Amino acid sequence: MADEPSRGLADVVAASTALSDIDGRAGRLFYRGYDINDLAGHAGFEEIAFLLQRGHAPSRGEWDGYRAELAAGRGLGSLVMQDLDGVARHQQPMEALRSLVSLGSADDPNEPAANLRKAARLTAQQPVLIAAYHAARTGRDLPEADPGLGIAANFLMQLCGTRPKQRAAEIFDTCLVLHADHTMNASTFAARVCAATLSDMHSAVVAALGTLKGPLHGGANEQVMRGLEAIRQGGGDPLEAVSSQVRQRLAQGEKIMGFGHRVYKTEDPRATHLRRMSAELATEGGDDTYYRMSRRMEEVVLAEKGLYPNVDFFAATVYHYLGIPTDLFTPVFSASRMAGWTAHVIEQHADNRLIRPDSEYIGESGLSWVPLEAR
Amino acid sequence: MADEPSRGLADVVAASTALSDIDGRAGRLFYRGYDINDLAGHAGFEEIAFLLQRGHAPSRGEWDGYRAELAAGRGLGSLVMQDLDGVARHQQPMEALRSLVSLGSADDPNEPAANLRKAARLTAQQPVLIAAYHAARTGRDLPEADPGLGIAANFLMQLCGTRPKQRAAEIFDTCLVLHADHTMNASTFAARVCAATLSDMHSAVVAALGTLKGPLHGGANEQVMRGLEAIRQGGGDPLEAVSSQVRQRLAQGEKIMGFGHRVYKTEDPRATHLRRMSAELATEGGDDTYYRMSRRMEEVVLAEKGLYPNVDFFAATVYHYLGIPTDLFTPVFSASRMAGWTAHVIEQHADNRLIRPDSEYIGESGLSWVPLEAR
Repeated sequence: MADEPSRGLADVVAASTALSDIDGRAGRLFYRGYDINDLAGHAGFEEIAFLLQRGHAPSRGEWDGYRAELAAGRGLGSLVMQDLDGVARHQQPMEALRSLVSLGSADDPNEPAANLRKAARLTAQQPVLIAAYHAARTGRDLPEADPGLGIAANFLMQLCGTRPKQRAAEIFDTCLVLHADHTMNASTFAARVCAATLSDMHSAVVAALGTLKGPLHGGANEQVMRGLEAIRQGGGDPLEAVSSQVRQRLAQGEKIMGFGHRVYKTEDPRATHLRRMSAELATEGGDDTYYRMSRRMEEVVLAEKGLYPNVDFFAATVYHYLGIPTDLFTPVFSASRMAGWTAHVIEQHADNRLIRPDSEYIGESGLSWVPLEAR
Repeated sequence: MADEPSRGLADVVAASTALSDIDGRAGRLFYRGYDINDLAGHAGFEEIAFLLQRGHAPSRGEWDGYRAELAAGRGLGSLVMQDLDGVARHQQPMEALRSLVSLGSADDPNEPAANLRKAARLTAQQPVLIAAYHAARTGRDLPEADPGLGIAANFLMQLCGTRPKQRAAEIFDTCLVLHADHTMNASTFAARVCAATLSDMHSAVVAALGTLKGPLHGGANEQVMRGLEAIRQGGGDPLEAVSSQVRQRLAQGEKIMGFGHRVYKTEDPRATHLRRMSAELATEGGDDTYYRMSRRMEEVVLAEKGLYPNVDFFAATVYHYLGIPTDLFTPVFSASRMAGWTAHVIEQHADNRLIRPDSEYIGESGLSWVPLEAR
């Protein structure tokens, strides 16, 4: 095709951003100029959400104010609460979140101050929506939010019904930090295309959620876990089963989920942190089989294809060890990425131009319309 | 900025399509090789939806089958029906459609045959959703759909409660034909970005609806009408009021809604047909003031700025004369564009590649993270 160079817009600059930057060759990721390696384990998710949405690391006072705003914004609206049970009964997790976030849109004006408030509220509500959906579909009551807990610990508490261990909450908090933004990924780009018509924050985030739903984007972490589960259930020595199955699939030209990335040419720095946390949780939890299987898979894919694990690969086992149901992995990703999506909408609106590309026409031409009666 | 040439992706080819083509200099638009000037008034909306979604003009037998499929697919699902009243009470029209279409997603497999069925169902349901929303918010019962009526006539009947005159139904049918597709406009592009993660048809259409909602895209027809209404309500001679107000706004550097287009350098061919239909309805309806005001506005903007009316300009008065409430103009646009959006999703899935552009980083760099306690 004539436009091969920009198919999928690879290497085409679609927008300017001050939110995140990737050095794909060196395997580095930055949020507003801070190296992700300095942030992981040292910055909390609420600090990162503030950093992305409001432009700088919060002072102590700003952080207190933002945390209070988040805690106050956790409540789900009446329309969402009214429709929650029906949605939980009839829709899969990502469909449900798309619907519930759409139902939650407020009539706030579409202007900068309101966008900051909406960004905080959406960031506060997304984990609550996931826990509320899970409670509704399993017929349980949603535990009351604990205003003393941050987003990570409160989510695990509302999801699992018990207060998480401190270290589990810290690890999940770091997961949220690692997934918060990642330049012009497909869902973020969808959010910006939507926002660039001067549509509202909720519409943009709903577009992003629908885009993240696709198996080539957000669905990968879930598929990694399902792959590991299937191999383990197949019986035999799980490490040998991993080796033989991965080699066989690679020989057949199949893709292995969780490996390779269009931007990183070396290891995704987020994978490094997630591997370490997966190891820690595996050791503490007593059953490290999935971790060891992941390590073996990593070795085989690197040896056979030269591909490194991406962010989805070790996120799968980390989420699994934290007790998150496999079909909620992509929703959990969305709870983190909400910080980035909303920040991108704010940035797009601040210096907006409609995003309207060209297309190349490859169909027939010069046809004459014959009325139905004569066809 | 370094990436100025592709800001907004103007002139960047983002995808190949066999669905529609524009010759912006000559002011021509083609659907699958057929000139819109040959289609307007000669092809029905159901024929065009089939043409776009299924690749060729339907034979008589195919047309009968497709019409039956559309009539059978009009019914709204139980989750939609359950939530309709709440949505109608709490959400504005485009928010409501975004929510209702999201609630209407089915668990159909994400594969070609199912996509064809979903495309037909979404096309059949969108006008019914609009009429059902309007009935719910005004506390009326939705009139039963008439299987003997096509989409255009049935919509006007369900919206207004009375069977439309034949000529009104024909004119509205032509409106649906004219708006059915338009290459890589922002909402269609959003749908393709979403679909390119291999997300599902409903997610892509929901992304498109949220994108169309923006005032720089679908909102324009409504703003045209509100502008005409405001001038008329201001009193005095409406034509003189148009002239003076438009000149004044242009002198202040303001944009006049409904004029100019990034692609067309001459008159948008759709505007030609819509002008003619607006004139016909104005003459028949007895009050041609809005039509004459539109003509005057057109003259002034062309003389002062050299800009031609776009598709939204005369659509406003046509919809108004057809009895469509002003705040449903953009929803009505979506009922037509649904044919194109769904066809673009089918086309994207048939030869898919993830759409993931680059971004240019314009923020700070090399910052060191200082822990909260030390800030």
